[in-house]
This record gives sequence, C-alpha cells and structure tokens, in this order.
Amino acid sequence: MRKLFVIGIGAGDPDQVTVQAIKALRQVAVFFVIGKGSEKQELVDVRTAILAEHADQPYRIVELPDPPRDRGVPAAGADAAYREVVEDWHERRAELLEQAFAETDAVGGILVWGDPSLYDSTLRMVERVLRRGRVDFDYEVIPGITSPQALAAGHRMVLHDIGEPVHVTTGRRLREEGLAAAQSTLVMLDGDCSFTQVPGDDIHIWWGAYLGMPDETLIEGPLRKVEQEIVTRRAELRAAKGWIMDIYLLRHTR
Amino acid sequence: MRKLFVIGIGAGDPDQVTVQAIKALRQVAVFFVIGKGSEKQELVDVRTAILAEHADQPYRIVELPDPPRDRGVPAAGADAAYREVVEDWHERRAELLEQAFAETDAVGGILVWGDPSLYDSTLRMVERVLRRGRVDFDYEVIPGITSPQALAAGHRMVLHDIGEPVHVTTGRRLREEGLAAAQSTLVMLDGDCSFTQVPGDDIHIWWGAYLGMPDETLIEGPLRKVEQEIVTRRAELRAAKGWIMDIYLLRHTR
Ligand SMILES: C[S@@+](CC[C@H](N)C(=O)[O-])C[C@H]1O[C@@H](n2cnc3c(N)ncnc32)[C@H](O)[C@@H]1O
Ligand SMILES: C[S@@+](CC[C@H](N)C(=O)[O-])C[C@H]1O[C@@H](n2cnc3c(N)ncnc32)[C@H](O)[C@@H]1O
Repeated sequence: MRKLFVIGIGAGDPDQVTVQAIKALRQVAVFFVIGKGSEKQELVDVRTAILAEHADQPYRIVELPDPPRDRGVPAAGADAAYREVVEDWHERRAELLEQAFAETDAVGGILVWGDPSLYDSTLRMVERVLRRGRVDFDYEVIPGITSPQALAAGHRMVLHDIGEPVHVTTGRRLREEGLAAAQSTLVMLDGDCSFTQVPGDDIHIWWGAYLGMPDETLIEGPLRKVEQEIVTRRAELRAAKGWIMDIYLLRHTR
Repeated sequence: MRKLFVIGIGAGDPDQVTVQAIKALRQVAVFFVIGKGSEKQELVDVRTAILAEHADQPYRIVELPDPPRDRGVPAAGADAAYREVVEDWHERRAELLEQAFAETDAVGGILVWGDPSLYDSTLRMVERVLRRGRVDFDYEVIPGITSPQALAAGHRMVLHDIGEPVHVTTGRRLREEGLAAAQSTLVMLDGDCSFTQVPGDDIHIWWGAYLGMPDETLIEGPLRKVEQEIVTRRAELRAAKGWIMDIYLLRHTR
C-alpha cells in the first residue's frame, strides 16, 4: 500500500517544525508541491530550509501548479455558488495529485503551512483523490504549529478569558456576523482590515503579521486607539514586501 | 536580566516537541514544575522523556506543589464567586514561583502541556509574578502542538467547513450555551460527556482520548448513533487507567 504523509510545518519559523514531522519527512521520497507558482517566495523558503536541514537525501520534488481558478467568483454572500466554484477547482487540483501519485510507488509527502486542520485545503484534496478511486494509498497527518498559536506566543497571551471560549473565524465572516459579546474572536484570512468595521469602544486587539519570520510585526492595544496605526503599518509593510499575512484577536474588555 | 522560557511541549506524544522548543530547553538551567503531586504519572512521563532526550545536562528541577485549592467552589453558573476562588488560588501559586525564581539567577523554564495559549494558567501566573514586582525577568513563549490539532490529525480532518468558523469551548459552556447552528464546536475540559445533553439528530462527533499517547482512542460518527459507545468506552478506559483526557468536535451536518 502506497503511503502519503501530510505534514504541518509551522506558520513561519522553520524551527517550529516538530520532531514527529522531521521523522515523517525523512521517510518521504517524493514531495508534492501544490500551488507552485502562486506562492510567495518567502513561504517557499521556509519549506526549503526545513527540507535542507532535516530531510534525508535523496528525495524528489514534484511540482503541481494550480489549475487556473475560475475568476467569475460570485459576490460574497452567495454561498452556494461560491462553494461550487471552489469545489470545481478542488476537483481539478485533485486530478493533478492523482496523476503525480500514480506515477510513483514511493512514499509521498505534502508539506502544509501551519497545521492541516485550519483553513487549508490539502486534506480535502487528498480525500477527493481517494474518493475518485483511481489510486489507493494510506495517509497520515502530522500536526504543525498554527498561526493562532504563533500570534499568542508573540503577544505572550492566552487566547481566551479563564474558562471562556475562543472563536476562530475569517475576515469575511467577521464582517457578516460581527463580534460576539462574551468571547474572544480570532480572525484569519482577512485582506480587508475588517476590524475597522467592528463597532464598539471597549474592544482590544492583538495583531500580528509575518509571525515567526524575520519581519514579524506585533501591535496591540484598544482597537479604536490602534486601528489606524495597524491599517497604515499593514499598508506600508505590504507595499515594501509585495505581500502580507496577518492575523488578530479581538476581545471586549469589561 | 533573568530569563524565563514558557515552552509548549505538545499534547501527548513527546515527538510533538518542536525544534524551537528543543533549542529553548537547552538554554534552561532550572525547570520549575508546577502542580507537582496533582499530575498524572503519564503526563509527567512525557515531560521526562522530552528532557531526557533533548535537554542539556546539567539542569535542575524545582518542584512547586500546588497550594491546597479551596474546595468550597461555588456551583456552576456563579461566575463571579467562582472566579474569585480561582484568582486567589492563582495568587498563591504565583507566590511559590516568585520565591523559587528569586533563589536563582539561572535561566528558568516551565514546560506546558499542549500550547500555553489554550486553557492553561501558566502565562497568567507568570504575569502575576511580574505584577507583584518582587522579581524582575524577561520571558519568552514557545508555541506547542495543541490537543485540538492532535484530535484533527488523529481523525485526519479539517476542523471547520470551507471558509466557516470553529468555536473552541469547554464542556461547561457547551451545557450552558448549546451548539450553534452554523459552526463547528470543539469541546475541551469536559468531565461529563456533555455531548449527550446536546439535542439534535443531525450532529456528527469526532472524539479522541489520550491523543498522541499509547492508549490513543478515536471514535467518530453520527452523535446519536455513537454517543452511548463513547460514554461506555470512556468509562471503561477511565476505570482501567485511573484517569482520562478527552476532547471532541461537534458539527451539524446539512
Ligand atoms: C490559508 S490560511 C492557512 C493557515 C494555516 N494552516 C495555519 O495553521 O495557520 C492563511 C492565513 O493564516 C494566517 N497566517 C498564516 N501564517 C501566518 C503568519 N506567519 N503570520 C501571520 N498570519 C499568518 C493569516 O491570517 C493568513 O491569511
Ligand atoms: C487544561 S487543558 C490544557 C490544554 C492544552 N494547553 C492544549 O494546548 O491542548 C486540558 C484539556 O485538554 C484536552 N487534552 C489535552 N491533552 C489531550 C490529549 N492528549 N488527549 C485528549 N485530550 C487532551 C482535554 O480536553 C483536557 O480536558
């Protein structure tokens, strides 16, 4: 039976890789690199650094460039139509992985940014390949440090008040649903500084960009006091580097 | 300036430790072990295995047994009173760490189960020691793999539907607040199988106990179909081993 490892590599610092991940990637003979081409060079560099330091030679890298994404994505809110576009794109990606995996009987590996369980499509793609039924394999998931944990570590904070919940969501959802009163809300995948659209004078924000990377930037304070600073800083960093990845926690203070 | 590392060590498998954590613990000369006495031996064993494999000799271990906890904890729901009891106990724990840290000027370290940002009191204790102002130090947080990630890896699943939120909460909160319709809910710290109290015929559960450990047990299925199996299995495992740690994800299916 063919074997595939889906390995979380942490969210920016190559040293966030676990011993379990290192042991797994030493068994891998073929790494599938998905989405090649659309990735930021610095993200590729993290993966390269991990392989250079920890993988056993010889291994091969098979690049699977993403199929073109249907740009006619329906407007936000049109959930069913949006899902369909995404689904179709995932099916085409799955086909590519299937073909690549069918051509080898070596142990395969896919390195995933952060942890595979959080806003990542790799596991759904792998399940899709299995459902298609043309190539059979066993797969194993190795957890990795997530960006929420990197944010918490950077600010040296606990994500929630004592015994209270933490809600993990996206910028789009935050805009649609607002901020619940009694919980901490962690926002990912937000290209629009959606925190500026959250009303309230008693909200605190802990924000972080490029966590674990050389340009790691942290800003924290009462939302209404620091939001403009974050918007400006984010725009500057993004302009200077050509890309940005950021994440933040919001919480009502009492 | 004295230095203290607060190091996440993963949630069960000693190999979940990261390279960053290993580099930090190699700098530590004194490990503070908090809550000594109340801990399960197997949890202590994970820590011991990590130190034995990765720490540099010589290091010291200073044990800080927990102060007796006021057993007159108010009934659930009495939030303010409950908080006060917990607060007071934390203050007494902080005092112990303060005293121990004052007696050395070596680099200190505290190993934390999972990640320090999730249902763990270490960071609040460290902040408390600093606020008391009698011992000054700098501290750094090293993220660790959490039990939610270990659960997701065990079931090889993503925690949420595409683009949707995931809510992380406790058994107590789940009983009080129920299950929201449009989200995945991850439940920790549940000694009472609270999932049995969640109404609904369209709920799926992914449950895991002793994740990453030799007795790792996974059960998954429609909640109404597998809940009794989980309750029974959990009771058996708990009786056999004397303790249990479990976690689960609930989600409405469409
Ligand atoms: C597609 S999701 C992948 C998340 C990843 N699987 C994880 O476990 O963190 C990408 C989002 O994660 C967050 N993110 C990932 N890495 C980050 C980093 N190093 N600094 C700040 N945010 C990061 C950002 O919110 C970004 O929009
Ligand atoms: C006090 S909290 C600590 C959580 C920890 N800081 C983390 O990051 O996972 C303890 C709870 O975490 C969950 N937990 C921790 N380790 C676990 C494991 N190995 N298997 C199952 N559940 C675990 C259980 O829900 C348990 O009640």
